[in-house]
Order: sequence, then C-alpha cells, then structure tokens
Amino acid sequence: MSKAIPNRSEDYSLWYNELVKKAGLAENSPVRGCMVIKPYGFAIWEKMQQTLDKMFKDTGHQNAYFPLLIPKSFFSKEASHVEGFAKECAVVTHYRLKNDEVNGGVMVDPDAKLEEELIVRPTSETVIWDSYKRWIQSYRDLPLLINQWANVVRWEMRTRLFLRTTEFLWQEGHTAHATEKEAQEETKQMLDVYATFVEKYMALPIVKGVKTESERFAGAVDTYCIEALMQDGKALQAGTSHFLGQNFAKAFDVKFATKEGTEEYVWGTSWGVSTRLMGALIMAHSDDDGLVLPPNLAPIQVVIVPIFRKEEDLEAISEAVDPLIKSLRAKNIDIKFDKRDTHKPGWKFAEYELKGVPVRIAVGPKDLEKGTFEIARRDTKEKNIIQQSEAVEYITNLLEEIQINIYSKALSYKEQMTSSVDTWAEFKSQIKGEGGFVYAHWDGTSETEEKIKNQTKATIRCIPLDAEPEAGKCIFTGNPSTQRVLFAKAY
Amino acid sequence: MSKAIPNRSEDYSLWYNELVKKAGLAENSPVRGCMVIKPYGFAIWEKMQQTLDKMFKDTGHQNAYFPLLIPKSFFSKEASHVEGFAKECAVVTHYRLKNDEVNGGVMVDPDAKLEEELIVRPTSETVIWDSYKRWIQSYRDLPLLINQWANVVRWEMRTRLFLRTTEFLWQEGHTAHATEKEAQEETKQMLDVYATFVEKYMALPIVKGVKTESERFAGAVDTYCIEALMQDGKALQAGTSHFLGQNFAKAFDVKFATKEGTEEYVWGTSWGVSTRLMGALIMAHSDDDGLVLPPNLAPIQVVIVPIFRKEEDLEAISEAVDPLIKSLRAKNIDIKFDKRDTHKPGWKFAEYELKGVPVRIAVGPKDLEKGTFEIARRDTKEKNIIQQSEAVEYITNLLEEIQINIYSKALSYKEQMTSSVDTWAEFKSQIKGEGGFVYAHWDGTSETEEKIKNQTKATIRCIPLDAEPEAGKCIFTGNPSTQRVLFAKAY
Repeated sequence: MSKAIPNRSEDYSLWYNELVKKAGLAENSPVRGCMVIKPYGFAIWEKMQQTLDKMFKDTGHQNAYFPLLIPKSFFSKEASHVEGFAKECAVVTHYRLKNDEVNGGVMVDPDAKLEEELIVRPTSETVIWDSYKRWIQSYRDLPLLINQWANVVRWEMRTRLFLRTTEFLWQEGHTAHATEKEAQEETKQMLDVYATFVEKYMALPIVKGVKTESERFAGAVDTYCIEALMQDGKALQAGTSHFLGQNFAKAFDVKFATKEGTEEYVWGTSWGVSTRLMGALIMAHSDDDGLVLPPNLAPIQVVIVPIFRKEEDLEAISEAVDPLIKSLRAKNIDIKFDKRDTHKPGWKFAEYELKGVPVRIAVGPKDLEKGTFEIARRDTKEKNIIQQSEAVEYITNLLEEIQINIYSKALSYKEQMTSSVDTWAEFKSQIKGEGGFVYAHWDGTSETEEKIKNQTKATIRCIPLDAEPEAGKCIFTGNPSTQRVLFAKAY
Repeated sequence: MSKAIPNRSEDYSLWYNELVKKAGLAENSPVRGCMVIKPYGFAIWEKMQQTLDKMFKDTGHQNAYFPLLIPKSFFSKEASHVEGFAKECAVVTHYRLKNDEVNGGVMVDPDAKLEEELIVRPTSETVIWDSYKRWIQSYRDLPLLINQWANVVRWEMRTRLFLRTTEFLWQEGHTAHATEKEAQEETKQMLDVYATFVEKYMALPIVKGVKTESERFAGAVDTYCIEALMQDGKALQAGTSHFLGQNFAKAFDVKFATKEGTEEYVWGTSWGVSTRLMGALIMAHSDDDGLVLPPNLAPIQVVIVPIFRKEEDLEAISEAVDPLIKSLRAKNIDIKFDKRDTHKPGWKFAEYELKGVPVRIAVGPKDLEKGTFEIARRDTKEKNIIQQSEAVEYITNLLEEIQINIYSKALSYKEQMTSSVDTWAEFKSQIKGEGGFVYAHWDGTSETEEKIKNQTKATIRCIPLDAEPEAGKCIFTGNPSTQRVLFAKAY
C-alpha cells in the first residue's frame, strides 16, 4: 500500500496540506479561500469548543449572539481600530437577485442597492460596543462578561487550510468593567485560560507574552498572546487577549454611574481563539504516517478492529468486546467498534493511524482463544498483548500516559529548539538554520523590529511575561536593552 | 411597581415584542432586520441546540461546516431551486475597504470588485451538494448523514424578533442515500425527531403533515412539517423535513457505484429548525406577567431568593440552602442562588417571574426558625411551605409536574381551538373569529388554495399525516375531496 502522505522532511508544507485532506479534516471549497470543515475535523473542533466553553462559563462568562453584518460607518468610530485593522473585508452592497433574462441564471438586481454598505464581520468589537451602550447604565450592570461563538470573514490573499482562511470559526469574548484593574485582571485571566487549554488539552507547551506596539490589535492598549512552536521551527500564535482600556467605551460612548454617583467610561477587554488552533494541533504532533491526536481532544479515543473472515467469528468477537465497550463508555471514553465488512483490517489499521486515533485494539479468533487483546498506541506505535480482564484499567491508564507523552515530546522539542543569542551574526544564522524560538535583546523601537523582520523574516513573537530583567545590547543596533524578547519566523 | 409588559388581550403583538425585550431574550440591532440574541435568550437556544444535537447524533448524524459565501452561479444549477427560492439575499460584490480621503471614514474600494458575486447563504443545499460530488463515489460512502449549525441570511422586508429576522441561526441536515426508500425513511425520521423535541422539551403539541405543492421547498419532491398553535389562534411552522428525490444529485452530478457495479444518482433529504423555535416557545406558554418556560429548556430551573437585611442573616440563609443547592446540582438541575445586595427581594421576584424561571424558593429568617422553604411555581403561581428535609424530592417532582402541566395546558388549548367545518360560511366565520386549526375539505388544486388565502388570509398548513380518508366536498368549489386538510392563519 502506498503511503497516504509525504514525509515531513521532504516537504513540510505539502505534508501538512495532504494530511489535512487525507485524514478527512478539511478541504478547499469552490469559494476562494473558504474551507469545508469535514465531519472528522469538525468533531475535533467540537471537543475544543466544548472544553473552552466550559472554561469560559466556569470563569463567569455567558454566551450571546451579535449580527453577522455590520454597517460600514461603525468601523470608523474607533480611530486606531479603523486605521490598524486590515480593510480586506467582504462587502455586501445589494440585497436581491433576479432572473437574468439575457444570459439565463441569476443576476444581481441593480435596483436593490443598499444605502449603506454592510461588512461581513471581521471581528465584532464595534457592533458589540454599540449594544453595550444600551446595556450598561450603572455599576450594577458591571462586569459584563460575554462570549460569542461565530464565523468571521477576512479577505486573505494567501490562504492555507485552518491556518489562514477567508472565513473561519472562532470565539470572541468581549467584557466591560468598572475599573482598569478589573479589566487588566480579566485580560490576564483569559490568557491563562487559553494557556491552560492549549497545554492541558492540546498537549502543546506555549510561551505567554505581550505583543510589541506594531503587532498590537488595532484599538487595544495591550495585546497579550500565547505562542507555540511547530515541527518546522516556526512559531504559531495560538490565542490573543486584549486590554482595550477605555478606547471602545469612548468611541461608542459607554459610560456608567458609579456607586458614588459619578459617571465614568467603562474599561474593556476582548479575547479570541479560532479554528487556527486546529492547524496548531495537527502541525505540532503529527508524524509521517498521519495525525497524532492527544486523547483529550480525540473524537475517537479508542478503536476496535475485529479480524474476521466468517460472520460467526465477528459474532464471537462482538460478544467478547461488548463488556469492554460498555465499561469504557461508562468512563466517558469515546470508543468505536468498526465492524464494517466493506473494508479489510489492514485498510482500517492504516485509516485509524492516519486519523490519529490514540489507541487501537485488534481482536481475532486467536485472541479469543487466549483471552487477550492486542493494544497499540498511536504516539509511539508500541503494541502489547493484554489480558481481557485487565483491558479497562490498561486502556484508561494508557490514554493518560499518551496525553502526557505527547506533551513531553512537544516540550522537549521546544526546549531543544529554543536558543539565546547575543550577536547579529548568531541571530541570522540561527533563524536561517533550524529556526525555533530565539531569545535576544532588542532596543525597543519599531524601526529596529521592522528592519530585523525585513532582513530575516523573523518577528518579535512577544515580550515574554516570565522573562527576568537582564541588561544587554540590541542585537541589531547595539543600543541598550533591559530584557530579552522572543523572536521566530511565524505562521 | 408598574407591570413590565402589556396584557395579551390588549395587544398580543406588542405583548410579544415587549416580553422578548424585557425578559432579556433579544433586541433589534442597528443592522436592519438583524437581532442581537441576549445572554438569557441565548442560554435557552443553547439548551435547544444541545438537546437537538444529541438527538441528531443518536440517529447517526455528524456535524460539519460549509462556507458562508456561495458563488452566485451555484443557485442556477437546480432549476426549481432558483425559480422557487426567494431571491432576497445579501450579495457580496467587493472585498476591500479603503480610507475615504474626501469624506473621512472608510469607503468601498472600487478596484476590489469580485469577478463573480458571492451570496451570503440563505440555505446550503447547493454548496453542500457540490461537496457531496467529491465525497461520494461508491455505495460504501452511503448513507452520508451530515448536519450543520450555522447562521443564514434572507433579506426579509418585515421582520419580527425570532419569528422572522434577516439573519437567523439554524441547523440544516443534508443527507445522501443509495435508495429512494432510505431517503424517504430519513425524511420521516427527522420529522419525528423534531416532533419529539417540540412536544417533549418545548412542551408544545404539534400536527405532523405534508405541505401542498405551493408551499413546498424549492427543489424538494415533498416537504413535511410540524405545525404548532400560538395563543392568538395563529399557527407557526416549527420545522420542516424535505425529501429531495434525485433533484440535487442530478443538478450537481452526484452518482455512486452500486454493489452490483452500476452507476446511479443518489437520493437526498434536507431538514431544519431555527431560532424561530424561540418565538414559538415564548408565544405558546407565556402569560401577562412574563415568560413561562418548560423546565426542560429553562437555563435557570430553580432560583433561590434570600430575604435578608443584615449580612449575618444572609450568612445563615446561605448555610441553610447550601445542601439543597449541592443536592439539586448533583441531579443536574440548574439552580441559581441570587444573593446580590444591589436588588431587593421584590425586584428579584418580579424579575424571575418575567424571566419564566419554573421554581422560585424564598428563604428568610422566619423560614430558618421553622426549618421551611417557601416554594412557588411559575406556571400556576401556587406557593407552598415545604420542610427543608423534603425540599430536594419536592422540587425534583415539581419540575416534572410543571413540564407536564405546561404541555397539558397547551394541548387543551389546541384541542379547544381545533374545529372541523363543512361550509364556506362556517370556514370564513371560524377564521375571522377565534381562528385556530380548522380542518376542512379542499379540492386539491393550487388555484383554490390561492383563492382561499386571498379571501381569508388562511393557508393550508399541511395535509395531516394521521388524517382518516373521508369523502367530502371542497368548502370553496364544492368539488370532491378525499380527506380534510389543516387550515389556519399563520406566522
């Protein structure tokens, strides 16, 4: 059987694209830059969603839903938002089609032109703060802690499945607070929620930090982020949390009466993660044979493949695995018994390997005789013969072990790929070579940041939150610096 | 305290609008015809979603996600789809904004005009069947059972919160099958899923039926529906399930290799319910004091309102209700303890009444002395004093009883408002009078249907599935008829 996907070392980019398609995660649609998220890919996204949604609710947030279409004029209300935000948006100008009497088919009805164009939301700060003006009058209405799960559209020129698509799915949290301190705390709390999710569920170590001015979200006072490292030595921004100060409150005139009877502008935050996380999950752990999924996010955690020729063999196998299936389901483990006779066991083995199912159980007539199961783990490909009576405990432990092992492997990789350099020559050679996370001194100016980017394609991913103060000299200008920042080439 | 909302008898329409706003369910947005679904309204929708999603998965369906934007030309591919489907759609013609140097703000960049316009999906048959062509080759790929949760846009001229909005949220199931019989069975199975959901969770009795030709979905061979009755005697279509025959398979050239090696077009279905169900839920059960929610869909099933003046009273109350809260949560009952000191108990009573919380517990220092709770139910407004030791069992039973009572009340209303008439005079008088569901004979022609509609505003809601064959004469033309159909004025 020929391999479904190329090796990473041959062509990392092609490996990723083919993996996404062959594993049934997503595919390009006939609509430029928009993807179709296929059932298996969507099932992973649903697990991410459910986990994050619970984390948001546990920290006091409620979901709501705001309009997809935003009047064009809203984007001009917050000056730096409109200046800084990419203007590549889908613009709705008409509201009716009609039959095309000349060419057949349908055409846009020229009589149905909108007075003011509507923008398909690229992000929802404007329309949400417009609502907050109506919802917030007094300190009793604060804090207002709202999240929205939604689709957004940003007209991207170069797209890549999950990593950068014209339409993508995301959540956007938008909160309003009585004090600056509370809003700051919220911003950091949500960064921590993201960090916990990515490390604990996605099994991916990250660096927490704050963006430089040039990478800040348009309209934010500070943008915090988490950065993860992919297997090709490039960084991927996995989530952002913005402290908005009073910028949107002022732009949309959102004031509240304090306990003391004065009137003040509220303080805001916004934070989001998107289907881009799917790209990170796939890129970070998978190998040349396909996807490797951490058990905490795998739609199928355990698959049972029966080895049978005759119908009666399948019946005997079904009987033998039935108690196992019930016991594992009772522990909320997602298990699939693939007893299709339309595909051979070998085909199924390759399929579930490609799809990254963490644990595979094979059972044939010989196993029944011996009272055993053959249990294989996807991450290390080790196989073991286990007594049926021990299977439930073995599998439960194995799933935990795989989750930890995948994280440890990613952590070792990150540590191995993290370097600290002091000279421009070292920096260039590191970035040009194996890449990875590179800690270096920077003089704090946007000019230097820009020049470094132009010459090496490396950007400042963040100013790490846990960095120790350390006097040094900017690798590029030699000007003084007080701490190292994190450089990398990035997705 | 003045009443938050008008009485139904004064102005049913105003009662509904005010109820939706005052109970914090939804509000109009500055975007024409688009609503903002507020947190409390969205929490109800989430419960609906979760319940339906589980029902879809239990019947073998998987979720996926298809693009929001659909090329204009796709709509012309299925002839009756484009003919019959409303052409009031949001049309994207440009993909970039730019700074407006003359007037300030932003303007649409005329250089960024799309070659082919994109339509914001009003429904997704076309883009989904375009994918199915790539996904289906052989009988092994069938059945393909997919659902999508999504937002859709239909440019409505007259909008009404939840009932008819330009953008709404829905789910759309799209399935492909090897045989006509299987597709027919799927269509009916999903109709039954909807009927079960509406009756069991929304506590709303329905009539199942099939639409007449003129009310059929554009592109369908048959459209099945469930119809519910609102408190003003008008019907509301609560869900539809379409048997598509091979229409979309032919339009998008979706064929499969059969087991026998021949090639055939697949058979299709599609089915959907939307945030319109929120409108039905609100209208069907609520009263002049606010929302009445069936416990199975209430975001807050039980609320505890402490009656206290001093901090120490609140502490004592908190201690007394703590075991109750824990016991009810362990039974997955959503309970809220509202110990805010910013609002008085009377305000809270009115608020939770308005919000339709099924069970309210009031506890003050006197209750603590006597070891009791005052428990009030929203549906009948009865109050009872219950021993604290009996509270868990009492409340658990009460929630079930309320669910049943709300359904029974709606069922009595429906029965009382269902009539059977034999003459045109009776028909007109019934429709003009109290309205309701009216069973009458019809000659089976679209012309007669149209004339009846023009003269009375009543439409044929459906040809009921459970109707007995019965010879009779059309109320309008006197021509022969073989069974009664269901007429009503409708939302």
